Amino acid sequence: MKVSKFGGTSVASAQQIKKVAAIVKAEPSRKIVVVSAPGKRFAGDVKVTDLLINLSAAALRDESTDEALAKVVERYAQITDELGLDHKVTHIIETDLLNRLQSDKSSPPLFADLIKASGEDNSAKLIAAYLTSIGMPAEYVNPFDAGLFVNDLPERAQALPEAYERLADLKNKKTISVFPGFFGYTKSGTLRTFERGGSDITGSIIAAAVKAELYENFTDVDCVFAANPQVVENPAAIEQMTYREMRELSYAGFAVLHDEALMPVFKAAVPLCIRNTNNPSAPGTMIVAERDHSLRPVTGISADSGFSTLYVSKYLMNREIGFGRKLLQILEDEAISYEHIPSGIDNLSVILRSHQLSSDKEQRIIDRVKSELNADDVHIRSDFSMVVLVGEGMNNQKGLTARAANAFARTGVNIEMINQGSSEVSLVFGILKEDEQKILNELYKEFFEPALVH
Amino acid sequence: MKVSKFGGTSVASAQQIKKVAAIVKAEPSRKIVVVSAPGKRFAGDVKVTDLLINLSAAALRDESTDEALAKVVERYAQITDELGLDHKVTHIIETDLLNRLQSDKSSPPLFADLIKASGEDNSAKLIAAYLTSIGMPAEYVNPFDAGLFVNDLPERAQALPEAYERLADLKNKKTISVFPGFFGYTKSGTLRTFERGGSDITGSIIAAAVKAELYENFTDVDCVFAANPQVVENPAAIEQMTYREMRELSYAGFAVLHDEALMPVFKAAVPLCIRNTNNPSAPGTMIVAERDHSLRPVTGISADSGFSTLYVSKYLMNREIGFGRKLLQILEDEAISYEHIPSGIDNLSVILRSHQLSSDKEQRIIDRVKSELNADDVHIRSDFSMVVLVGEGMNNQKGLTARAANAFARTGVNIEMINQGSSEVSLVFGILKEDEQKILNELYKEFFEPALVH
Repeated sequence: MKVSKFGGTSVASAQQIKKVAAIVKAEPSRKIVVVSAPGKRFAGDVKVTDLLINLSAAALRDESTDEALAKVVERYAQITDELGLDHKVTHIIETDLLNRLQSDKSSPPLFADLIKASGEDNSAKLIAAYLTSIGMPAEYVNPFDAGLFVNDLPERAQALPEAYERLADLKNKKTISVFPGFFGYTKSGTLRTFERGGSDITGSIIAAAVKAELYENFTDVDCVFAANPQVVENPAAIEQMTYREMRELSYAGFAVLHDEALMPVFKAAVPLCIRNTNNPSAPGTMIVAERDHSLRPVTGISADSGFSTLYVSKYLMNREIGFGRKLLQILEDEAISYEHIPSGIDNLSVILRSHQLSSDKEQRIIDRVKSELNADDVHIRSDFSMVVLVGEGMNNQKGLTARAANAFARTGVNIEMINQGSSEVSLVFGILKEDEQKILNELYKEFFEPALVH
Repeated sequence: MKVSKFGGTSVASAQQIKKVAAIVKAEPSRKIVVVSAPGKRFAGDVKVTDLLINLSAAALRDESTDEALAKVVERYAQITDELGLDHKVTHIIETDLLNRLQSDKSSPPLFADLIKASGEDNSAKLIAAYLTSIGMPAEYVNPFDAGLFVNDLPERAQALPEAYERLADLKNKKTISVFPGFFGYTKSGTLRTFERGGSDITGSIIAAAVKAELYENFTDVDCVFAANPQVVENPAAIEQMTYREMRELSYAGFAVLHDEALMPVFKAAVPLCIRNTNNPSAPGTMIVAERDHSLRPVTGISADSGFSTLYVSKYLMNREIGFGRKLLQILEDEAISYEHIPSGIDNLSVILRSHQLSSDKEQRIIDRVKSELNADDVHIRSDFSMVVLVGEGMNNQKGLTARAANAFARTGVNIEMINQGSSEVSLVFGILKEDEQKILNELYKEFFEPALVH
């Protein structure tokens, strides 16, 4: 049995949903289908989830919701129409939305969750109706009835262990199950959504629960590439990689899958495949527990910009127990998370995502580090990028750091930071953002071009 | 005016003190002499400071101090004798020690300080008497009278800002001032010692206070070498390096100077020279604010063993604000300081000196990290070494990391950790201890052998 999740662009229109139906039909083992809300049909289009966010905002402001509601209903009506479904389906969806709008607004986040989640919920109802209408008996599955239980506020929504036990029953259904992604319910029946992009998580939880032979994540790209195709010309497709490699690549902009979606299938040892709804014959990228890494030690090279460095120096810092902890406490007080902490003997730098800073915050941090930690020098610099080499074979292949460093030397790009030594499958370089394109291309040449002969 | 500090081996015997006198005589600008307590005369000899530690321990245990006292007095008596000084000098020293032993023992650390400091104090009295006896008018300077004021317990003893103002008066003395190293007084008159090796600190404070043209630190080596002579055959002498380079080299076993001794002269821009009492014609190693680093980007390569790694992994760690801070708090609770924190996306390693660990502590740390931080994996590995490349030219010279990494690749030594990016003058590699000798020699070859033609 396979669990097949279809993303927003895969269910954005009647035409796309017909592709989904064809994919499901092609393999009888595709018994569980997890769907997103209708996404963009074309560049500049608005996702249903964004329409719903506008709708809930209007409702929470006690403004008229007529216009915002009409936009949502219109999207579903058009799909229903083009799929040749009974108009009653649209009516069911509109009634559902009106009911949701009447709900308790005492917790604005929970009210917003309820409205947003309707995108996936109604998408699932619609697709189940369509599959049935073309002779593929399918059933919409309500996450509460199926047992997708999540924890209560204030923690981020996460599936409870017993959710996996309950959801395992899905494997006994005779018909195709169409499950809405993105949300679950607390045990007392309150709807909570996962983070944005969370339909990936729903699919992974269900695949783990039913111990699927495969979790297919259908999106709009053929595969994961070894480097960003917008920077490197015609990068190689990654045919296979491990969970660990996927996770390390997600560090820097390989945003194919939601961060949290990897863990459930990883723990249950269910392989994952990234595939393209628009090109179902492409094999996609398989994500597995182990792979033969003798041929190519490096699997992918990713890069991400938007990093800043907080530099702090103080004579005899390394003898001062508690210095690093106090510094991190100051950042924590500003709700800032960090990525790396390279250090010299009397100095350290904290590398963090720049979007977390503001000039106010920067000033407060600098002032506190100076006054509370008696630092000799404190400053913040921005416009850094991180380049990450990822590969299971890296730890075994001596000389790999030298190959990477030689690529830097050839381009004349300065290495501002190197981080190696905790993860066995990645090597991180900090560079100036302006050097990103140059070094990405050179690293790609070093680690991939000789292998492109096949 | 120069401030010349003579270490323990330089004043270990009459023969050595005669060398000191000759050095002071050779340059009339050597007006302030700072002395240690008599050190080892030969391998296996016992330093006077260690005899004094035994003496204070016996006194604190209320045991007989006769034997321990006799050993100390005997060392001074022998020196006095061989220098042809009046036996009254020995008598003064013995009386001084007996007085100290009668002091208040309510604070054992302060009592121990008082006894230990007599080593330097009596050494200064003896050497002042000797210089005067051979026609070089010299005067013992009492640190309290001269104003070497330090802070109170419980902080580590450090000179107060006003000490520098008071000590500046030393430059007006006509005679040679002989100043005991290692200790100062609180403003209320309590004697406190610096850390062991702290005579270096005294010399640096005085050199800064009088704005000396040079602070000479006489020891028993000709110079600082570019690598450990016990590992690398005939390493190059470092003729000149910057304060920053000296500081970064001190990270890993270049124990020529006490850690805290660099700051006073650095702040006052007084150059420092490491020289050899036993070979005063050798130019020594000059430590200055700036140097021309175009010829040799790397100044020295140091290495130190005895490091352990605490590895912690947790899925989605990098999104968890406070994770690193809580981890460091656990180490702080065990009074453990750390050196580096390399990190991957879902994992980090804390590199620390192994001597801080014990099996009890390790178990407590692992248990707490697992239970309080819900880590997926925690383990501690030991027997790591750190190898540090240091040089002012490193930041400007692109390709230097590649040269170092190529040296690793040639030897087949695996790079367990790289830390680059905070300090502009150092690059740190973590390796297994067993690889230390191999890689040190290869790195030395890479960065120094081509330059050995001169």
